[in-house]
Amino acid sequence: MEIITSSKAMQERALQLKKQGYSIGFAPTMGFLHEGHLKLVTQSLQENDVSVMSIFVNPLQFGPNEDFEAYPRDVERDKKLAENAGVNILFLPERTEIYPNEPSFEINVKNRTGVLCGRSRPGHFNGVATILIKLFNIILPDHVYFGMKDAQQVAVVDSLIKDFNFPIELIPVETEREEDGLARSSRNVYLSDEERSQAPHLYKGLQKGSEAIKKGEVNPSSVIHIIENYIKTNTNGKIDYIEILSFPNLDTLEQIHGKIIIALAVKFSKARLIDNIILEIHS
Amino acid sequence: MEIITSSKAMQERALQLKKQGYSIGFAPTMGFLHEGHLKLVTQSLQENDVSVMSIFVNPLQFGPNEDFEAYPRDVERDKKLAENAGVNILFLPERTEIYPNEPSFEINVKNRTGVLCGRSRPGHFNGVATILIKLFNIILPDHVYFGMKDAQQVAVVDSLIKDFNFPIELIPVETEREEDGLARSSRNVYLSDEERSQAPHLYKGLQKGSEAIKKGEVNPSSVIHIIENYIKTNTNGKIDYIEILSFPNLDTLEQIHGKIIIALAVKFSKARLIDNIILEIHS
Repeated sequence: MEIITSSKAMQERALQLKKQGYSIGFAPTMGFLHEGHLKLVTQSLQENDVSVMSIFVNPLQFGPNEDFEAYPRDVERDKKLAENAGVNILFLPERTEIYPNEPSFEINVKNRTGVLCGRSRPGHFNGVATILIKLFNIILPDHVYFGMKDAQQVAVVDSLIKDFNFPIELIPVETEREEDGLARSSRNVYLSDEERSQAPHLYKGLQKGSEAIKKGEVNPSSVIHIIENYIKTNTNGKIDYIEILSFPNLDTLEQIHGKIIIALAVKFSKARLIDNIILEIHS
Repeated sequence: MEIITSSKAMQERALQLKKQGYSIGFAPTMGFLHEGHLKLVTQSLQENDVSVMSIFVNPLQFGPNEDFEAYPRDVERDKKLAENAGVNILFLPERTEIYPNEPSFEINVKNRTGVLCGRSRPGHFNGVATILIKLFNIILPDHVYFGMKDAQQVAVVDSLIKDFNFPIELIPVETEREEDGLARSSRNVYLSDEERSQAPHLYKGLQKGSEAIKKGEVNPSSVIHIIENYIKTNTNGKIDYIEILSFPNLDTLEQIHGKIIIALAVKFSKARLIDNIILEIHS
C-alpha cells in the first residue's frame, strides 16, 4: 500500500493514473476504521482499477461544542486495516496540507440540511461539502463510496455532485452492523458497557417503525411515537431526533409513501449515535 | 468547430479527450466576443491540444439592479468569430442546462472581494465562483484563460483554484485595447459617441498614476487624487472607485511597494467600465 501525505503528490499521482487510463475508486474517511469503512473499500476494489482511501478528521465539519478533539484516532492501526482491506493508496494529509490558509470560500448547503443532523449540527454539512470538493479535486475519482449510516451525508453528496457537475458517480453502501444490529461507528468505543448493551435498541426501534409502516400505518407522527416509546423504554439515551422524510430529497411528509427514510440520533453520555432505515412504500 | 449545448455531452467529450491524452485549454466568456476574448483563444491554441470556449451569460453574477437582461448578445456573430479564431469546441448551454434547479449550494467568497468590484457588486463573485466550479467540472481543462481587464476576477479564480485544489493552471492574459487605449469590453457598445471619445481617458488616468508612482510617489491617496482629477477633468463619467492595492491579495496599502494594482470603475450613462494597471515597485 502506497501512503501519500502531500496534496500535491496525491493529485499528481491521480493525474498520472488517469493518463494511464486507470479508473479510481475513493472512500473518504475520518479514520478509526471499522467494518463499515472496509466494506466501502471491498466494493471499490470490485469496481475500479485503483482504490484510494483518505483519512482526515476534518475540523470544518465539527461545531465548537462537538467532539473534534476527542474524536477517536489510531493511525497505525488504521494503516494495517487499510492495507489488509486492499487499499492501493492511502491519502493521509496533515491539517496544513488541506488547509494551508484560512479558507477564502464558504460553502453554504441550502437544501437537504434543515432536517436531521443538519438541524442539530449547524454548519456541519458546509464543512463536509468544503472538504469533499477539495478531496474530489485531489483524488479525481470515478466512483466515490459513502456508507448509508450517514444517509443525510449521502443525500448532500448526491446534490453536491449534481449541482457542481463533478464527473463522479456516487455509490451508497449499506450500513455495516454488529451481530446485535448496532450500526458500526467509530464513536461506539465511547459507549459505557451499559450503553453498549442498550445501543442495539436504536436499530430495533427503527425496525418497529418500519414494521408498523409495512402493516399500513401512513401517519409519520404515529410511527415516530412507536419508535420514541421503544427507545425511551429500552435505553437511557437522550433522543436528539426521530424523523421520517422522503429520500433523497429529505422533504417532510404528510403521509408516508414512496421512498422514505426513518432516521434517528440518540445521545449517550459520550457518544451521539445515528442510524436509519430506508424503505419504499407503494400503496 | 464543434458546438455542444448539453452539459452532459460536453463533459463526456472532455472525458473522452482526456482519456486520449489530449490537454484542454478553456476560455470562459459571456459572449459578444471582442479581440480580448479572441486573444485568450490564440494563447490557448498555442498551449493545448484542444481549445474550448464557453459562452454563457451567468445570471448568478448579476445583481438585481444590474444589466443581465440588457447584456449584449449576438450568438450568430460569436459563432463565426470563435470559429475564425480557431476554437475547437464551443460550449453554448441554455440556462436550464447549467441551472436545471435552484442551486442547493451557495458559495461565499470571503477574501479579495471587500474591495473594487466586489464592494460595488455584492454577490457578484459568489456567482462567478459557482459558475466556474461547474464549468471547470464540465470542461475539465488543464489551463484556463482569463483577461486581466477583470483583475479581481483573476485574483478570485487564483484563490478558487488553490483553495479547492482544482488540477488546473490559471493563465492571466494581458488586457486587449483599442488603438486609443480603451480596454476592449462587450459593454463598450453602450457608450454614446461622446462617451466613447472620453473613455480612453480612463486608461490615460491610470497611466498618469503609474507615472507618478514610477517617479517616486508612495502615498496611495496622492496617486488616487491625480487619477481622480484627471478623469473628472476629461470625462463626464461617474467614478465608482479608484483603488491601489497589493496584487493578487488585494490588501490595502499604507505605502506603495511590491506588486500592486491601480484599478478603477467609472459609470457612463449605460455602461460601467473597468480598467487597471499592474506594476511592480522595488524601492
